[in-house]
Amino acid sequence: MINLRIPGPTPVPPEVLEANARPMINHRGREFAGILDRVTSRLKEFFLTKNDLFILTTSGTGVMEAAVVNTLSPGDRVLVISIGAFGDRFANIAKAYGADVSRLDYEWGKAADPEDVRRALAADPAIKAVLVTHNETATGVTNPLEDIARVVREFDKLLLVDAVSSLSAIPVRTDDWGLDFVVTGSQKGWMVPPALGMVSVSPRAWEAHAKAKMPRFYFDISAAKDYLGRGQTAWTPAISVFYGLELALDMMAREGLENIFARHRRIAQIVRDGVKALGLELFADERFASDTVSAVKVPEGVDGKALQKLCEDEYDLIIAGGQAKLAGKIFRIGHLGFVSEEDVRAALDVLAKALPRVGFAVPAAGSGG
Amino acid sequence: MINLRIPGPTPVPPEVLEANARPMINHRGREFAGILDRVTSRLKEFFLTKNDLFILTTSGTGVMEAAVVNTLSPGDRVLVISIGAFGDRFANIAKAYGADVSRLDYEWGKAADPEDVRRALAADPAIKAVLVTHNETATGVTNPLEDIARVVREFDKLLLVDAVSSLSAIPVRTDDWGLDFVVTGSQKGWMVPPALGMVSVSPRAWEAHAKAKMPRFYFDISAAKDYLGRGQTAWTPAISVFYGLELALDMMAREGLENIFARHRRIAQIVRDGVKALGLELFADERFASDTVSAVKVPEGVDGKALQKLCEDEYDLIIAGGQAKLAGKIFRIGHLGFVSEEDVRAALDVLAKALPRVGFAVPAAGSGG
Repeated sequence: MINLRIPGPTPVPPEVLEANARPMINHRGREFAGILDRVTSRLKEFFLTKNDLFILTTSGTGVMEAAVVNTLSPGDRVLVISIGAFGDRFANIAKAYGADVSRLDYEWGKAADPEDVRRALAADPAIKAVLVTHNETATGVTNPLEDIARVVREFDKLLLVDAVSSLSAIPVRTDDWGLDFVVTGSQKGWMVPPALGMVSVSPRAWEAHAKAKMPRFYFDISAAKDYLGRGQTAWTPAISVFYGLELALDMMAREGLENIFARHRRIAQIVRDGVKALGLELFADERFASDTVSAVKVPEGVDGKALQKLCEDEYDLIIAGGQAKLAGKIFRIGHLGFVSEEDVRAALDVLAKALPRVGFAVPAAGSGG
Repeated sequence: MINLRIPGPTPVPPEVLEANARPMINHRGREFAGILDRVTSRLKEFFLTKNDLFILTTSGTGVMEAAVVNTLSPGDRVLVISIGAFGDRFANIAKAYGADVSRLDYEWGKAADPEDVRRALAADPAIKAVLVTHNETATGVTNPLEDIARVVREFDKLLLVDAVSSLSAIPVRTDDWGLDFVVTGSQKGWMVPPALGMVSVSPRAWEAHAKAKMPRFYFDISAAKDYLGRGQTAWTPAISVFYGLELALDMMAREGLENIFARHRRIAQIVRDGVKALGLELFADERFASDTVSAVKVPEGVDGKALQKLCEDEYDLIIAGGQAKLAGKIFRIGHLGFVSEEDVRAALDVLAKALPRVGFAVPAAGSGG
């Protein structure tokens, strides 16, 4: 049995995989309208929002683009808070569409400081929107989104949130925190395969949308809204993933959202404790370490790629490497969505066996299994 | 057993549905790299091209947008040939991104005339690119693409082709005909669920791409090319659909592309003959009637919606209605991808039974079954 421990695509429960294999239906017919309606309502419960919510057939990057092009015009001044590769991506998307990007950058491994956001907004009243990664998958760091959102609300700016690898696993209280455009992807905390992105749109984001001049067509939320009124998606949807998503959301509703959050907190702590017991060092500032993905420093003298390959080839454990400038310097363990304590304990056991084989002496206490 | 006879999503063979249910893997790992490589090579055989080919996680509309934004700049003069709703969509995408759109419009049900294209290009040398629908799903008409392409080549313009509902079922000879940017979608002729769009890019299209200034990020083929070099897609792909696509392409390769074309021609003729035998009239100019979808006029005095509902509720036959201005005026029968003579004969039998129940007297010869 493969233990897929990357931060997405995440493992999919067997019954959800089975749902994935149901025959095709008419995406403009009554059966699909029922699925779309139920899934949309359920997703709102998990987004903790009464805002409009749309499901687009695309990956996480596509819904990040949707956030930008639906709310901004070329030349708009925006503040992008980047703590890693996905923050950089948000900035690059905004730049590609002609936004005037001001950056608040942090050393990778650190979280953003809401007071810096306050200073940046106070210093530059032209800023119209703040773009922020909630959970930075590249570094295993979760930003203090609630505190950042409070500052952004004080200044009455638009807040676009990449919650791709946090939503449904780490609390994102869309309405309580006043988040305007929140995006996530099916292959992360939702226990289904990739292909669907979900976005929530606040009344404030709709106001911005009415004036937003960035070109858009496929990702246009006006089209999504028009069609949703008829029980349809604007363009042909990833039907198989919808089948699975409806079932996965039922399973999640049975577990309960707060219980899901607690499970992720508990399992993440097991990973962090286990990694340290192995004599390894976490990459992230531990006060902001993510409950969905842990980044671990590759120890001095160890070949990170060789470790990854050994885990995969001989122990059926799939972990992720580092991205961009962290390639070879960290490895990452995903623990979001369909994940149990046993899954991560099994992963830690494999590391205890594999690390000595790539030249790293695990302390006696850490190899206990 | 449901007989899904709409022009997409099309039925998926049982073994392909099963492949859809395989567990997730690392999209940045070796196993996926192998799938991506094999599927990409196979698709080139079906596109009849040696051009670059990329697979994007999106619907047909998304790859139409990819064709536009990757090759054009705002203000570029383009000629859009529209014979129906999907031609209009191509024009709307180009307009949304700031192209200066000149239109060559035809009455719905008719095909474009290559001589009109010649006149339009001769009259307006500023035109940089021609955008054309190969097979208009909304009207059941196939444009004479080879002849249109010959004219476009004479004038040395860029040719962007929406082959969403033709490719793999109706001949599209990408390299022989000199097609620059060809797009299609997984849920049409490919026998897999929706979520993947495929695009081929000629050297001429790459030259245009190098100068093209329309904003793009998710659909940027430069990113797709960079990542394909590493055996990856730029963004997280619809993995389950890839599983199915690999298998479906194997099945298609066993049948052989020319045999697949012949099967579609034969089955389409059965539909057209059968519809006429029922006393119904085809909507499309029959010289250009599509081999993948047939549009049929709703007879005087018959409620098209009631016919559709009756077929679905009592006979398990799903047909499509008319789109946009054809709503209520036509119904459409899909016959592309995983389709046999038996499937369309069964559909015709249902129509023979259902039509009298909505007030249309079927001639004695037509109800023979």
